[in-house]
Amino acid sequence: MRTPHRVAFFDTDAMRIVHHANYVRWFELARIEWMDTHHVPYQRYVEQGLHFATTRVEVDYTKPARFDDRVSIVAWLAALGGASLAMDYRVERAGEQLVSGRTEHACIDDEGRVRRIPRERREMLKSVLAAAGDENSLRTG
Amino acid sequence: MRTPHRVAFFDTDAMRIVHHANYVRWFELARIEWMDTHHVPYQRYVEQGLHFATTRVEVDYTKPARFDDRVSIVAWLAALGGASLAMDYRVERAGEQLVSGRTEHACIDDEGRVRRIPRERREMLKSVLAAAGDENSLRTG
Amino acid sequence: MRTPHRVAFFDTDAMRIVHHANYVRWFELARIEWMDTHHVPYQRYVEQGLHFATTRVEVDYTKPARFDDRVSIVAWLAALGGASLAMDYRVERAGEQLVSGRTEHACIDDEGRVRRIPRERREMLKSVLAAAGDENSLRTG
Amino acid sequence: MRTPHRVAFFDTDAMRIVHHANYVRWFELARIEWMDTHHVPYQRYVEQGLHFATTRVEVDYTKPARFDDRVSIVAWLAALGGASLAMDYRVERAGEQLVSGRTEHACIDDEGRVRRIPRERREMLKSVLAAAGDENSLRTG
Repeated sequence: MRTPHRVAFFDTDAMRIVHHANYVRWFELARIEWMDTHHVPYQRYVEQGLHFATTRVEVDYTKPARFDDRVSIVAWLAALGGASLAMDYRVERAGEQLVSGRTEHACIDDEGRVRRIPRERREMLKSVLAAAGDENSLRTG
Repeated sequence: MRTPHRVAFFDTDAMRIVHHANYVRWFELARIEWMDTHHVPYQRYVEQGLHFATTRVEVDYTKPARFDDRVSIVAWLAALGGASLAMDYRVERAGEQLVSGRTEHACIDDEGRVRRIPRERREMLKSVLAAAGDENSLRTG
Repeated sequence: MRTPHRVAFFDTDAMRIVHHANYVRWFELARIEWMDTHHVPYQRYVEQGLHFATTRVEVDYTKPARFDDRVSIVAWLAALGGASLAMDYRVERAGEQLVSGRTEHACIDDEGRVRRIPRERREMLKSVLAAAGDENSLRTG
Repeated sequence: MRTPHRVAFFDTDAMRIVHHANYVRWFELARIEWMDTHHVPYQRYVEQGLHFATTRVEVDYTKPARFDDRVSIVAWLAALGGASLAMDYRVERAGEQLVSGRTEHACIDDEGRVRRIPRERREMLKSVLAAAGDENSLRTG
């Protein structure tokens, strides 16, 4: 899953590069699109009073993106627990990797209590993870 | 009411100045502090399920702020209606005006319906406005 | 010119609506796309050491956008001076107007000095403005 | 070094908690203040054409901060290389840890080339690290 993004002026800082905190937002854009394509729209969770709260973020910055760059954020499911999941990301410009990262999420309800991912949805994610595993082997093999 | 603010690196953009959208956020910082000092903490409204939704914003930019500048945001009540109010702002650096602006707000409940400002609070705001009027006359007189 | 935008989770605030400062950023997205289509990419100005610094912003908020809404930002050239221009905006969701606004800009160089818009570019903008004027008459007629 | 921060409304998202990307910005606030107190103001680096580009960010989220919370961001130097350093952070509310994290930085010049931290400054940082090491032992001992 590849989310195209055009770097906005407001994404930049006085080093004339994208401010490092903004990649965490871009990961979110990609995660939302990933769910549309490979799972169910995140909005369906929200409507049921469920959220994937972010419990951990890791970002490695190799090269900076700049104003007006056309980048893509590649996202894939990296791990799945009973009430949690992890996503991996790669931000690329013209095939070159700029940034990589991972986010981890806990499924919680409106009161902030941890909740198991609903069974049917968890099965869907499991299949996606298995398939992604195959792809990842190919990718890095 | 004068809210001191130190310009963060993340406030800047690739023109090496503060991005213009951020002053709208700074107005909010000053508005919240103004309420603490001259009215009641905004949190009290929120706890009752009331909000001051922003209905209009105006900003005039004269000079740019830059990374690490120490600025102050001066805020004062400019107008009061039954379910609305307006605040005026001036962003200064070492006494020099950089930006001025106004925000207008409607009092709404959690469902987004317009609600009159609770009577007692409205009376408080009225007195502040009257007093501020006197100050403003002095300021511009 | 119509820029589609999907409301991100990070665009929202604790009122469960889009934070009002973010529309100023959306105007920028639309302005940049408008320049691509109706003028020259903004990047060309930047490469020459020219910028359109924002000198004024006005926003009127009628209805809130929410997470995952598909909105469009409609932008058009509203006025043109020797070293300045103004853009008008309308944010819509399913044809309904949520927000409208205007931004004004001064053409400046890397040192922040006001500079006339290069003649050829200014001629281009003049033609666009004339054409837009015709469209606007139709739109509001 | 402890940087007090009052959670702004614009820091929150539709989960009614602080959006996870904002803690990365708060780390920056704390890092800048840490440099003032324990090193030299970051602005001195910028004036010499040097920057500490962020090369890695890690954040662990335990409990959410909310609108109007008074939090502190505790920052300390965690590691030092010839052209790099790492900072650790803890965000607390009333003594309770909400979030912890680390950022890593490379010293670069205006053209983005890696540069050794100027010798004298590096010596300063070394002493601070040694002292912090002692404190950290006490803290966790």
